[in-house]
Amino acid sequence: MRRVNAGDWVTLYYSEKETYTVRVDPGKRFHTTRGFIELDKLVGVELGSDIETNVGEKLVVSSATFVERLFSLKRFTQVIYPKDLGYILVSSGVGPGSVVVEAGTGTGFLAATLAYYVRPTGKVYTYEVRRDFYELALENFRALGLQEYIVAKNKDAREGFDEENVDAVMLDLPDPWSIVDKAYSSLAHGGVLMVFVPTLPQVERTLSALKRSNFRMLEVVEIMLRRYKAEPAELRPEMIGVQHTGYIIQGRKL
Amino acid sequence: MRRVNAGDWVTLYYSEKETYTVRVDPGKRFHTTRGFIELDKLVGVELGSDIETNVGEKLVVSSATFVERLFSLKRFTQVIYPKDLGYILVSSGVGPGSVVVEAGTGTGFLAATLAYYVRPTGKVYTYEVRRDFYELALENFRALGLQEYIVAKNKDAREGFDEENVDAVMLDLPDPWSIVDKAYSSLAHGGVLMVFVPTLPQVERTLSALKRSNFRMLEVVEIMLRRYKAEPAELRPEMIGVQHTGYIIQGRKL
Amino acid sequence: MRRVNAGDWVTLYYSEKETYTVRVDPGKRFHTTRGFIELDKLVGVELGSDIETNVGEKLVVSSATFVERLFSLKRFTQVIYPKDLGYILVSSGVGPGSVVVEAGTGTGFLAATLAYYVRPTGKVYTYEVRRDFYELALENFRALGLQEYIVAKNKDAREGFDEENVDAVMLDLPDPWSIVDKAYSSLAHGGVLMVFVPTLPQVERTLSALKRSNFRMLEVVEIMLRRYKAEPAELRPEMIGVQHTGYIIQGRKL
Amino acid sequence: MRRVNAGDWVTLYYSEKETYTVRVDPGKRFHTTRGFIELDKLVGVELGSDIETNVGEKLVVSSATFVERLFSLKRFTQVIYPKDLGYILVSSGVGPGSVVVEAGTGTGFLAATLAYYVRPTGKVYTYEVRRDFYELALENFRALGLQEYIVAKNKDAREGFDEENVDAVMLDLPDPWSIVDKAYSSLAHGGVLMVFVPTLPQVERTLSALKRSNFRMLEVVEIMLRRYKAEPAELRPEMIGVQHTGYIIQGRKL
Repeated sequence: MRRVNAGDWVTLYYSEKETYTVRVDPGKRFHTTRGFIELDKLVGVELGSDIETNVGEKLVVSSATFVERLFSLKRFTQVIYPKDLGYILVSSGVGPGSVVVEAGTGTGFLAATLAYYVRPTGKVYTYEVRRDFYELALENFRALGLQEYIVAKNKDAREGFDEENVDAVMLDLPDPWSIVDKAYSSLAHGGVLMVFVPTLPQVERTLSALKRSNFRMLEVVEIMLRRYKAEPAELRPEMIGVQHTGYIIQGRKL
Repeated sequence: MRRVNAGDWVTLYYSEKETYTVRVDPGKRFHTTRGFIELDKLVGVELGSDIETNVGEKLVVSSATFVERLFSLKRFTQVIYPKDLGYILVSSGVGPGSVVVEAGTGTGFLAATLAYYVRPTGKVYTYEVRRDFYELALENFRALGLQEYIVAKNKDAREGFDEENVDAVMLDLPDPWSIVDKAYSSLAHGGVLMVFVPTLPQVERTLSALKRSNFRMLEVVEIMLRRYKAEPAELRPEMIGVQHTGYIIQGRKL
Repeated sequence: MRRVNAGDWVTLYYSEKETYTVRVDPGKRFHTTRGFIELDKLVGVELGSDIETNVGEKLVVSSATFVERLFSLKRFTQVIYPKDLGYILVSSGVGPGSVVVEAGTGTGFLAATLAYYVRPTGKVYTYEVRRDFYELALENFRALGLQEYIVAKNKDAREGFDEENVDAVMLDLPDPWSIVDKAYSSLAHGGVLMVFVPTLPQVERTLSALKRSNFRMLEVVEIMLRRYKAEPAELRPEMIGVQHTGYIIQGRKL
Repeated sequence: MRRVNAGDWVTLYYSEKETYTVRVDPGKRFHTTRGFIELDKLVGVELGSDIETNVGEKLVVSSATFVERLFSLKRFTQVIYPKDLGYILVSSGVGPGSVVVEAGTGTGFLAATLAYYVRPTGKVYTYEVRRDFYELALENFRALGLQEYIVAKNKDAREGFDEENVDAVMLDLPDPWSIVDKAYSSLAHGGVLMVFVPTLPQVERTLSALKRSNFRMLEVVEIMLRRYKAEPAELRPEMIGVQHTGYIIQGRKL
């Protein structure tokens, strides 16, 4: 049996529509719509058992997935969906030990995800020109316990990256075409550039820049996800849903 | 500058339509449509430089991505597409250090991908009832250098899994409903079950089994990928393409 | 120049987000969020000119498309989207002169559309077991001026259709499998059956029934529509939208 | 019972994978992979009965749908798919009695479809600058028996349309932006412009032109169709299929 330690992330289950994900910070109190929980009380609890709120409501204690932790952090101003994150990861080959450069950090959502996957021997270097975002990102990295795998820089990526021979460069900013040549310099031979943009004119400008900068094996994809109603007798896609997030552009230094 | 070592995987680029991915096994000879290369000659070569075939054609030497390595192994009889692999990974939270159970191994494609991402501290336990597949999978794991992260078992998953408290169970077999209860027993609280099936009647039967086995937070998704013509002046999706691979069903032990 | 006649349908344009579609019934008053219009005032007005509401706001008067007329009738309880209607029409070949049987009428949306397209020499026979729907449908047919092309029957389609040798049968009801054999009897050789259902278990049951009833050339399709933001510099699909309406099943009596 | 007349179109069914659609032109001989049929023999045959080829193979005789007739004409060099045709029809409101202008004719596929639906009181005016296409289109219109509903002109649409106050203008040519203003002049108030283009840069240029020409209620959609395997026990989308045809742009003169 596994037990909860201080600093662990847990998911508290009340019903299918009501779950909570929280980091067990001793001394803090966590509020739910069913009353609050003193987080100290969670330390040592066996996963799978119940915890009672101050008003006697019971929630089941379980470990939290990484996505639950990410989406529980309200401080992220912008997110990339799991469907896109997953493709970016697998298609780029970024995994344990990879060295990755990313811009712009924003509030750190993509950098945090990359850091989770390059652990424990890889590193993510992330660039952000805005001071407030940079500081919020640092906070987010600490909250997720990922700060040791990330080097965050409060610098404009347009001035170039300090790193060389990196495995991948990820660009998630409004004008990726302006730093595509810097990305090329930073990559190792065989390295992968991944760009995420929401509109088609951005795709067109980025593709033109990639061709000028000598990137090869260009690829543009969009990934659509449809969620189904999870009832065997009424199986069908949800009527309304997210139809679009963005386009993923890929190039190789070959 | 990085140089090629014996045992590395490299991608050799001749043109946009003609690239090769190969492991540098000294003593072997690699055949291309442009002549052959003695792989010994690749050891010590700087990434980004050219290598000449026996007939004098030049190819650029670069490192290979994990997906290139996977897809270069002709011995896999069945593959899961990067769009699906990526979502399975990110949505389950499987990453460095995770302990995962998988069935059936088949020729090892999914197990190999999982092993790549749980390195260096996690482990993949994979079950396959067919002896020939089991042996082919072992060969594939060794070819990819992932054997130390995988425990392959030539056993019928329907008899249950030996592992307990695992982070995730992945099922990629024709009748997942028959072992959904074994998966539940094997999972830690908070653990994730992911099932991949190609047809809708399979989705229906699996959902019914998940409900009976007390799985929570059920989710069914399908992921569609459209590849675009990577020409800025003629940007549009490819006319013909893969429209369907399968459905991903998820449940949590909560 | 065309002028508005009594009984015509017009679309009144105030802004991109605010248009109204109304039938010019003399003696009636039409309310907008910009004041009201006495419909008598519209008779004789040239299309393309302005009409003033009682508070002096101006709206441009134009002819209304058939879809605008349909969607302006609040009395329809259920609609089929243009993407599905269009495919049903073209794929079945229903057009001017066709003789079509439909069940169930509901409030008449599909029957009205079919009637619009079989005019002036074709006919739509539509069956509805519920009296209230049947009466509402009659009202809708009259409002759209299509009553002469429709024979509405307050009868249970499960007891069979009175018509023979029809060009097409359209089924839009929860249990189409229960009358698929009646549809077969009613069709001419070469005739087309089209079934619209929202869930996958319904598709499975309908397909089984079609096979049992000797239908040929079975086809199941789903039609997805994505609406784009109509701004050239920010072109991209709308983020949120309708992801699913239903499946269209087709069979031929051959 | 219906019987075949000279000039009718029939579909001959041998098996699910082998059907033929042909116009019954007496005096002609029709070849199948099962031998040939003297078309004279078909006149007077009851729909639903068998016809024998010269080598004694039997095919079932049925009426042909309009789509079967269209797709049996090998002389069309370019087609628009039923999913797109249907949406264009329903969304524009083009139906019996409508007056429509179209450019360019090409080999007449879209004009023929429009003519089928505006019968018997409407009219299609279609423009084509290339003489060879114009002549081929005339042949196709006659083969389909639609010539009396179509006025084909061997003229460059860029010089403007002769018709005024038309219900709809349809553009299916590489540079629609160059005649969008001519389309506006030709339309009645309330009239609809529909443009079909395959690439995204064409969508962007067309949208800009529509805005400049004062079109309102701009809409851009793409319609995706997935065909399913029509087997109830193995229901799933076909693995490979058409992923893209084109974008449909709509504007109103309001």
